[in-house]
Amino acid sequence: MGVVVPLEDKPEERAGIERLVALVAPGMESVNRLILSRVGSDVAMIPEVANHLISSGGKRLRPMLTLACASLCGYAGNGDVKLAASVEFMHTATLLHDDVVDESDMRRGKLAARMLWGNEASVLVGDFLLGQAFKMMVEVGSLPALDVLATAAAVIAEGEVWQLSAAKNTATTEDDYLAVVRAKTAALFAAACEVGPIIAGRAKAEQAACRSYGTNLGIAFQLVDDALDYGGTSTKLGKNVGDDFREGKITLPVVLSFRRGSDEERAFWARTLEQGEIAEGDLDYAIAIMRRHKALEDTIERARHYGAMARDALALFPDGEMKRALLETVDFCIARAH
Amino acid sequence: MGVVVPLEDKPEERAGIERLVALVAPGMESVNRLILSRVGSDVAMIPEVANHLISSGGKRLRPMLTLACASLCGYAGNGDVKLAASVEFMHTATLLHDDVVDESDMRRGKLAARMLWGNEASVLVGDFLLGQAFKMMVEVGSLPALDVLATAAAVIAEGEVWQLSAAKNTATTEDDYLAVVRAKTAALFAAACEVGPIIAGRAKAEQAACRSYGTNLGIAFQLVDDALDYGGTSTKLGKNVGDDFREGKITLPVVLSFRRGSDEERAFWARTLEQGEIAEGDLDYAIAIMRRHKALEDTIERARHYGAMARDALALFPDGEMKRALLETVDFCIARAH
Repeated sequence: MGVVVPLEDKPEERAGIERLVALVAPGMESVNRLILSRVGSDVAMIPEVANHLISSGGKRLRPMLTLACASLCGYAGNGDVKLAASVEFMHTATLLHDDVVDESDMRRGKLAARMLWGNEASVLVGDFLLGQAFKMMVEVGSLPALDVLATAAAVIAEGEVWQLSAAKNTATTEDDYLAVVRAKTAALFAAACEVGPIIAGRAKAEQAACRSYGTNLGIAFQLVDDALDYGGTSTKLGKNVGDDFREGKITLPVVLSFRRGSDEERAFWARTLEQGEIAEGDLDYAIAIMRRHKALEDTIERARHYGAMARDALALFPDGEMKRALLETVDFCIARAH
Repeated sequence: MGVVVPLEDKPEERAGIERLVALVAPGMESVNRLILSRVGSDVAMIPEVANHLISSGGKRLRPMLTLACASLCGYAGNGDVKLAASVEFMHTATLLHDDVVDESDMRRGKLAARMLWGNEASVLVGDFLLGQAFKMMVEVGSLPALDVLATAAAVIAEGEVWQLSAAKNTATTEDDYLAVVRAKTAALFAAACEVGPIIAGRAKAEQAACRSYGTNLGIAFQLVDDALDYGGTSTKLGKNVGDDFREGKITLPVVLSFRRGSDEERAFWARTLEQGEIAEGDLDYAIAIMRRHKALEDTIERARHYGAMARDALALFPDGEMKRALLETVDFCIARAH
């Protein structure tokens, strides 16, 4: 006799993003066309720099979430496409500015734009994309959606400055670190999801539900990213493994390792991350310490916790293909770690 | 027998900005309070960096223009204060990003923020101010005003990238140069003025008039600035004389000097501005060439032309104190050159 196993109970067995991709494919075609048309400019450097990043194969998870949440809420207009493109532009602008701030050499497996066109172009093309993002939002004409996205823009920048002030401080607590993640990553996921029910004219409860889904998915996503930075391969990640280590970023795997470690290990973290004195073999040693203290596994465990909250946030929506796709997306984000 | 000399005929005899300052003083008090409250953040570095620039004594011409144009159009609400603060935040964000792009050491007679807090903080605090600017605009709730300001943000960034691509090219034409000025300076002046009639609910003709006033005033303002960079003193300007020269910026005084110069002089411009090989005494020699070709006088003459267009743009408004103040502001901007 067969036993019906509800999908929700064994989430990571079906951890694909394929259902989401398939369901939003027609909308994403419009989003991609819109993105290409809005990076156009008589100033040749703008589409060059923007396309370098835009065409480099990000998953475009954030705009997919906007389309999916709008659809989940029964939205039938075409404002979701412009908002989705705005969200992707905001994200791309953040990446361009981040690379300048972090002095990164690589992004998505390619040379960072700043290595090819200079910091100046990265700053200014980022500003251009932000401006275009706001123009598109205004065209949609929803003041509440504008409010959500403008607030996210301010919160993201605030979180980045916070991270800058907190950088290289091994005494960072898990709470401090989570506050940064909420601001710099989760705020845009939350806004991307929340504008869906807003333009669909749905009640506050649905808006809050989608916002909560986005916030918690965003946190889970970032925590997994932090773990991958110490546990993946360069090819798989599309970035250099150990980037966070070399940049002295205090992420959750470090916070946990530092707190659980010996005096000798703490001296190691202070030398490498605070003083930035990194020698041959230090990255391998950092990973060994993390494994010893189960810091990577527990970072993923924390991610799973936020993933569960994201899943529960959608409970008030009736079952259906789109809801199922959004639930599977949570599992996909966490399963990246394995 | 006395002869009545209309003010408009001898504009530069009464070239004060005092009337404008006095008329918008109550509104500017609210703007300044709002600015201080909106740079507040739990992240201490944000108010530090922002206040460094905000308190360094810019004239706040742009927000004054927003209040003045709203008042000229009979606006009686308080949305003008938020839009004026937004305009100043957009301007401040641009300055922070410009300093990074230009690698400037000084701004308004003080060390540039990037020299004190680093490029990272200048980029990110600029982003924060842009986000706060958009939040305030959204609070005012006028989609047409949002459209004007969002478009300006994109145009400004586009102009900056254009300038970056055109930088150090002595073959830049006057038309090329003016296109950059229209984008990077005049667009914000135009938007600052245009939102006044928009929130006052005035007809397209008044919107276009205020926009034209702002555009042409902005061009005149920038051209005078370009001349001052070769003709003032560090104290008077609040920036280093010769900054544009050292940064290889091709401004109108250079464009005119290059075109009117000898082969020997053109070689001088190519060496100093294109190749960036600047020796002791080169700045003095550059100024001497400009004087020989009347390049500074003619840059001011061009500014006077745009000033006249700005004055004429206001013709459709009935005479009154505010209109008089706006006309005197044009003269003030040009008289700075003497």
